[in-house]
Amino acid sequence: MLASTFVLFGATGDLAKRKLFPALYNLDLDGKLPEPFAVFALGRKPFDDEMFREHAAEAIRRFSRRGNADEEKISRFVKRIKYQIADATDAAGYAGLRETVEKRERELGLPGDRLFYLSVAPEHFGPIASHIRASGLAKENALTRLVIEKPFGRDLATARALNAALLESFPAEDIYYIDHYLGKPMVQNLQSLIAANPVLKAVLSNKYVANVQITASETVGVESRAGYYDEAGALRDMFQNHMLQLLMMTARHSEIFDKRRIMESAYPIAKEAAGSHVVRGQYAAGSADGKPLAGYLDEPGIVPGSRTETYVAARVMLDDPIWRGVPFYIRTGKRMSEKSTRIVFVFKDPLEAHIQGEPVRNYLTIRVQPDESVDFRLNLHGMDGGLEPVSLRFSTRKEEVPEAYERLLHDALSGDPTFFAHWDEIELAWKWVQPLQEAFAENRVPLYTYPAGSRGPKEAEELLAEQGFSWLEQEDLAPEPRVEAEAVAAGR
Amino acid sequence: MLASTFVLFGATGDLAKRKLFPALYNLDLDGKLPEPFAVFALGRKPFDDEMFREHAAEAIRRFSRRGNADEEKISRFVKRIKYQIADATDAAGYAGLRETVEKRERELGLPGDRLFYLSVAPEHFGPIASHIRASGLAKENALTRLVIEKPFGRDLATARALNAALLESFPAEDIYYIDHYLGKPMVQNLQSLIAANPVLKAVLSNKYVANVQITASETVGVESRAGYYDEAGALRDMFQNHMLQLLMMTARHSEIFDKRRIMESAYPIAKEAAGSHVVRGQYAAGSADGKPLAGYLDEPGIVPGSRTETYVAARVMLDDPIWRGVPFYIRTGKRMSEKSTRIVFVFKDPLEAHIQGEPVRNYLTIRVQPDESVDFRLNLHGMDGGLEPVSLRFSTRKEEVPEAYERLLHDALSGDPTFFAHWDEIELAWKWVQPLQEAFAENRVPLYTYPAGSRGPKEAEELLAEQGFSWLEQEDLAPEPRVEAEAVAAGR
Repeated sequence: MLASTFVLFGATGDLAKRKLFPALYNLDLDGKLPEPFAVFALGRKPFDDEMFREHAAEAIRRFSRRGNADEEKISRFVKRIKYQIADATDAAGYAGLRETVEKRERELGLPGDRLFYLSVAPEHFGPIASHIRASGLAKENALTRLVIEKPFGRDLATARALNAALLESFPAEDIYYIDHYLGKPMVQNLQSLIAANPVLKAVLSNKYVANVQITASETVGVESRAGYYDEAGALRDMFQNHMLQLLMMTARHSEIFDKRRIMESAYPIAKEAAGSHVVRGQYAAGSADGKPLAGYLDEPGIVPGSRTETYVAARVMLDDPIWRGVPFYIRTGKRMSEKSTRIVFVFKDPLEAHIQGEPVRNYLTIRVQPDESVDFRLNLHGMDGGLEPVSLRFSTRKEEVPEAYERLLHDALSGDPTFFAHWDEIELAWKWVQPLQEAFAENRVPLYTYPAGSRGPKEAEELLAEQGFSWLEQEDLAPEPRVEAEAVAAGR
Repeated sequence: MLASTFVLFGATGDLAKRKLFPALYNLDLDGKLPEPFAVFALGRKPFDDEMFREHAAEAIRRFSRRGNADEEKISRFVKRIKYQIADATDAAGYAGLRETVEKRERELGLPGDRLFYLSVAPEHFGPIASHIRASGLAKENALTRLVIEKPFGRDLATARALNAALLESFPAEDIYYIDHYLGKPMVQNLQSLIAANPVLKAVLSNKYVANVQITASETVGVESRAGYYDEAGALRDMFQNHMLQLLMMTARHSEIFDKRRIMESAYPIAKEAAGSHVVRGQYAAGSADGKPLAGYLDEPGIVPGSRTETYVAARVMLDDPIWRGVPFYIRTGKRMSEKSTRIVFVFKDPLEAHIQGEPVRNYLTIRVQPDESVDFRLNLHGMDGGLEPVSLRFSTRKEEVPEAYERLLHDALSGDPTFFAHWDEIELAWKWVQPLQEAFAENRVPLYTYPAGSRGPKEAEELLAEQGFSWLEQEDLAPEPRVEAEAVAAGR
């Protein structure tokens, strides 16, 4: 059963503009919203309904994945929105808000099943939840869902405090911790990769896999978020949430399908040992495409001499029947040479002795973004009688693929928690990260620099070299010769 | 070391025109012929060098895989050819032939390393070999290679007699039994598929494979070859050679890499039991693309009431450590609904219970012709949350791929027997086929009819249904939704 009232706190913010309104619009286009459907957009800015609807329409035109704006459909969609000037931190305003919502629901004949999306600063999560409950804005005997987005605390203690605060107002099952990486189709595919494919189940284990590499690299620097980022750093901003969720999604398998149990199985890294398993880095001045790029310390808004990391790489080992002994190498960084989120399973044993040719390992690569594909790297007999690496590839056409927020908003409206982060996973991830945070704070792990536009600190290579491995970069993974032939042929 | 003299018997024939001259020309273009290189074209027709060179040039323009004829290069190539009017059955002519060859070799400074290609009727194989030897046309203390093409006998006894006759004139290692299916790149790939790919080695065995399907279907009927075909039938024309070679190439693996040992491991089918394991068919009137097609018995040149089979399907089981218990279903036919040579490994166990969605088996498909590709069929998480079958595909661009004859002629010139049929394999294949030949002759196996343009006799379905399987047709193997997206996207 889908909630049919959507109450959005922070409706004039960036997330609403870039993601939430375009996502709701696309769900509407695809007939995936209940009919009727009421959206209450709450913000402090002085819009009226008409102005805000135009603001939302403009956001849709600009950010919807579907290129050709259909003005009639946009217009129909934005009419579902009512804007309400509100200071969400002020408990006094909630009674009026409740009246507005109830009045509109009565007009539309809606049951009062409400989703509250808190696109606000994290310090407001607890208070807003509390006001919603106290004011009766969450209707008794109707569906209620509360959706919040990271940061979920800044360490184990603050995360626990946040969760405790939310639980005072909402039962656990009504709280949806959104991690938009879990909405990406290729990440969702990880869920069924092993379970739905006997051939993959056969090989995705420590018997055949030498190591697994999970990369999320960005080309952008700190951009306009210096204030937040310099406090957070890559470990909090990316690693504790997205990267560890990717690890959980990647490592789950038929026997242990529960992400929480995967996270539990990760061997803890003591802060004293962190330097042996973790590499942290901060970008220095560099260049990309021939253009100079400033170093992190020269970015506007960064505290002078900041030791905040913009890069983290870690080797994670799992105490898991399927993955025991297989290193999971995880890295994320800003100002890297390429934008890419991907997971690579690297297989053992290049070749048998009696086959001649260059030994090339088999890989299975799941590309999450910017392009989505699944690649199997095999060795085939080349034209000259030797071996040649080729990729079997499946890839998707971009505009046909729903955005992460479409799936996740729909899941939240439906009450399906599958692709959300769950509190126990969040707590375990913070627990695992805690010694690293301490090691960073106490400078037990060196802060290496790397040139902006590069592949990160060279010390991250050594993390793999110890086991005889190396990071597979985009150029290693996307061999040409004949892979794109099909595309070329079809294009003529 | 490459032979530098190429002596072609039957130079005015169809094979020379369509395949051999275009292949030699493309080898020349690719710099794969020794320099200088002498071609002696022997035939009974009254050409002179100039006329024959123009004939060969025209064949190249028409049949070379490289579309744009380069007149200068064609002209340079055909100058290598000398035409000689010769009756190859007449021993008396060989002395003169030898003189011509030796004179030309002296002019060009060639050592006399000669390849004899016998593109002639099979009854001439033995006599020509004998004349070559007796006349001294095969030079002492130089390389000598004799290449012949099927039919290699019409049963076990005649094949043995042929081989014995050839062995009187040539040592076994100088005789190259060409099977052009072994020259196709995707068939050659079968050689390294398991050995060079740990992930495939892991799954290509009876532990994971439910059955293997080898198909070679033609859309053409008997065409102009009624005289030969009505005598031969599909069992002799396709099954004993190409299909069983495909079986051997498909089933070889790291432990048993010798094709002969694979053929030895095939459980014999007694003629009394043939009807339980083999289906034979003959095409009746039918249609394709809305056009009516004549039945086999109405084709010109077919003996009235002929019981020659145009279709054979068989279930072959191997007594092999890797493949024991896995049925290999092999079929070949004329006037089928599609032209396709392909090998499909069908994996066991569609899905685990806790994954929802349509159960779709995993397949690995090797397409040999008309398109070449390797496809891995997997289940991915679809856009609507359910499972969706997708194909990971690698395919080649046609004009870049050498034709089978290019590779094989080059191998024969180089003295590399890897991708030729070997006498012991040929003999074992005839031994295996012999009871089926007898069963057909004694009508122990029903002759089913099937409409021209169809998928063959419906009784062939039952061969698989007994084990709970079914033939995978092109439409099962080439699912659309998102597979071609890459091609479409790149074409814009």
